[in-house]
Formats: sequence, structure tokens, C-alpha cells
Amino acid sequence: MRLLLDTGAMASEPRVISVSKGLEEGSLQRMSEVIAEELGLPAARVAVLAGPSHAEEVCRRLPTATVAAAQARPFALAVQRLFSTDYFRVYTHTDVAGVELGGTLKNVFAIGCGISDGLGFGDNTRAALMTRGLNEMARNGVRMGAQLLTFFGLAGMGDLIVTCLSRHSRNHQLGEKIGKGLSPGQALAEMTMVAEGYKTAPSADALAGKLAISCPLIHEVYDVLYKGKDPRQSLHDLMSRETPSEWQDLPEGIVQ
Amino acid sequence: MRLLLDTGAMASEPRVISVSKGLEEGSLQRMSEVIAEELGLPAARVAVLAGPSHAEEVCRRLPTATVAAAQARPFALAVQRLFSTDYFRVYTHTDVAGVELGGTLKNVFAIGCGISDGLGFGDNTRAALMTRGLNEMARNGVRMGAQLLTFFGLAGMGDLIVTCLSRHSRNHQLGEKIGKGLSPGQALAEMTMVAEGYKTAPSADALAGKLAISCPLIHEVYDVLYKGKDPRQSLHDLMSRETPSEWQDLPEGIVQ
Repeated sequence: MRLLLDTGAMASEPRVISVSKGLEEGSLQRMSEVIAEELGLPAARVAVLAGPSHAEEVCRRLPTATVAAAQARPFALAVQRLFSTDYFRVYTHTDVAGVELGGTLKNVFAIGCGISDGLGFGDNTRAALMTRGLNEMARNGVRMGAQLLTFFGLAGMGDLIVTCLSRHSRNHQLGEKIGKGLSPGQALAEMTMVAEGYKTAPSADALAGKLAISCPLIHEVYDVLYKGKDPRQSLHDLMSRETPSEWQDLPEGIVQ
Repeated sequence: MRLLLDTGAMASEPRVISVSKGLEEGSLQRMSEVIAEELGLPAARVAVLAGPSHAEEVCRRLPTATVAAAQARPFALAVQRLFSTDYFRVYTHTDVAGVELGGTLKNVFAIGCGISDGLGFGDNTRAALMTRGLNEMARNGVRMGAQLLTFFGLAGMGDLIVTCLSRHSRNHQLGEKIGKGLSPGQALAEMTMVAEGYKTAPSADALAGKLAISCPLIHEVYDVLYKGKDPRQSLHDLMSRETPSEWQDLPEGIVQ
């Protein structure tokens, strides 16, 4: 979280930029909603900065592209102006929900990719898990009022790629340990930092259940983490489902 | 290419499944179009099998998910039945153009990712290049009559991931050599197998030009490969462009 003190028309109103991720347990609220509620601010005063941006690499000034989202474009543009440099590129968005959900749900799929890598599977499996994961993310998000295209941009696909593939990702590390044979409890005990996806998985599974959207990947990760399901059995169950076309449960007419 | 001899209603009509990729130089035709023309078949008799499926891993029976596309669903379903196993999953599609374009344009972006890795950049840069690459791919494809969502599925995003990140990818290898300082000519001379993206880059750049779609990534890869442009200058030019919102040039109303 970071306070933005703008000298323009917005100077008199406190505004917040959230760089936090997650869904609140129970309420399933996004972080900008929690921040607005706790600080007693209107939702329009909370912007979100997200995207594929490992801090370790931003510090080294490696080229990075991100998104700033706020309900009103001028606030998003102010965040863009504040953070843009020649190595940190900021695109603007007004789809706050989509940008936040992308950064949240990806952690569950990063655990799934880690499990696959730990089991010794290859690039094909990982690409399939990531693509089908983004599919689940997008279908959930649209039903929560997010815009479909947001998930195919930097806050969705971009952040998913960085998290699923990076050696910096704690969620991937957790999954990999489980894929190699540790129980979830043993794997968690070996972690020195929090793997957010572990906490997000039950909320994500509950969310999909509440929206009645078929999300087999989220569900299998949840079952492995919390129900003691064998990861190989999970993968077998995923592969032997009926194979429909790629896009199900999208509201009719959303794409022409 | 592989002949499909079906015993059902389609038995009397020769049909072809294409597993080739690329755009024909000059005509910019897709491979299924070239096959139909050369064999004197209607386009409806050529199906396409594509997606993130390195042969090396399919041989080892590692879990893989792909798409079969044909103009009519029954033909796609016949391909699905023919190839589906418990480690090779096939989704069906009727968007032949989209499925083929995904498999073609990805090679250009894989060279771009290789260049970035060769220059020593990190996960953030690679994720940004892949996400913006898919954005260019989708915007071109939609204008060529493909369906937007196809690019966010296995034949688009999935295949892009596998190609941009895999040690098996020749296109990535070519880019990496250039990023490390070899000229394109020197890098090509060191390659023992064809990097398809080298041939696709001029066609892709011509295609974007013909459709008047802004595709800065395709253009910079082309300039590095064919015009002697310094990769660092290319990256600088990409990062210092005006930063709009993520989706430009999409036909109005395509997404609600």
C-alpha cells in the first residue's frame, strides 16, 4: 500500500494504491474492497497496481510492464505518471476487479504447475495447466463483473506466467515439494515464506462453487492441499474428464 | 500431414489432417489453405491438429492437451476420437484460421523472448513480451476472421508458452544467440535445425502492415533479424513508446 499525494484536482481527497493480493476468507472480498471498507473510503479512491513484476527484478531495473487500475481513468493515469520510468512501463485500466482477481487466482495455478514439475512432467503439461487455469480464472472473473480481456493481459496471463515459471515463486516451490512426495503439511513446514495460494485455494474453490462454474483445476489443487488426495490421481482425473470445446459457462454473447 | 481414413459417413471423401505450421511467403496463406489448393480439396476437408505438444514429450507419454479444428464439428470430433488417449487430450474447435495462426505467429515471439533472455533480462521482461505478443497475435487474427477466444486457448497462449520457454524450442535458441551478441547470420549458421520464426517474421510484419494493425513487437523482431537493428535499441524503443490501454485496434463491440 502506498499513499498518493497528487497536487492536482485530487489533492484534497486521500487516495490509496493497493499492491496487496488475495481474497478475504469468508467474505471473499478483494483487497481493494477490504482497504476501502477498513479506511472508510469510497471504492473509487482505491487504485490497484499489478502485473508480472517480481520485486527482485524491478530493483535491478530489468524491463517490466504492469497495469494501474482505478474506477475512473484519471486516477489510473495519475498512478501511471507516478510510477512510469524507462524500465517500468504502466498500462491503464478501469477494470479493478479483473486486475485484482488475476493477481489472486494465479497463485493456485502456480501450486498446480509446481506439483506437475515435481512429479517430473514436462513443458506440455505445464502449458496445458496454465492455459486451462487462465480459462478458469477468466470464467470466474466475468461472472464477478470483471472484463474478459483483462485476464488475457498483463494482470492475468502476464502475472500467471511469471508466477508459474519463476524460481522466485513461493507457490511454485510449495507445489514442487508436494509433487516430489512431501505431504502438504511437511511441504509447508519447509517453507520460510508464505505461499499465498495455499490460503487462496479454499476461497477460490468456494467462489467457483458459489458461482456454479466448473473449475476442475482449482478443485483438484484444493483436494490435494486439504483433502490428502494423491497428486497423480488428480492429474489422472483431470485428463480423463470428458473433453468438450475450450470455452464453457461464458455468458452468451460476451464475445461476437 | 496424415491421412484420416474414417469408416463412417466420411469414408468416400479423402480428408487431410494438417500438423504443419507457417504462412506461405508472398500469398500469406495458411498451411491448410495451401494443402487444400495443392490437393484440389475443398477447405472443409482439411483439419488441423495443434497446441502445446513437443513431440519429445508426447513420445514419453507426458500429459499433453491439444486442439483439433475443422470447419464442421463432426470432422473435428473424428480427429478427437482418433488421437485421444489417457495422456493426450484433444479439445475440438471450428476456428481453423485461429488455430493455425496461433501456431504460426508464436515463433516470432519465441525469437523475441530468446533475445531478451540472451541479453540477460529476467522473468518480468519475458512475461511482458509473451503477453504483448499474444495481444498482437489476437488482434491480427481477429482481423483475418479468426475468433478472439481461440488465441487465449491451447493453440494460442498454450503453444506460445511452450515455445517461448522450452529448451526444445529452436526459435528461442536462435533469439538467445542474437541476444548474446551474434549477428543473425552468425546465429543461423550455428543452428542445425530450422527456426521457423525467422522465415515467418517478414510475412508477419507484412501481414500487420497490410491490415494496418500496430504490432511493435513483430516489427522490432523483424528489424533485428533483417535490418541489423541492435536488440538493446529495439527494447529501448518498445519501452519508451506511448503507453495506452492494453487493447487497441480490436473491432468495436467484439467483447461486451
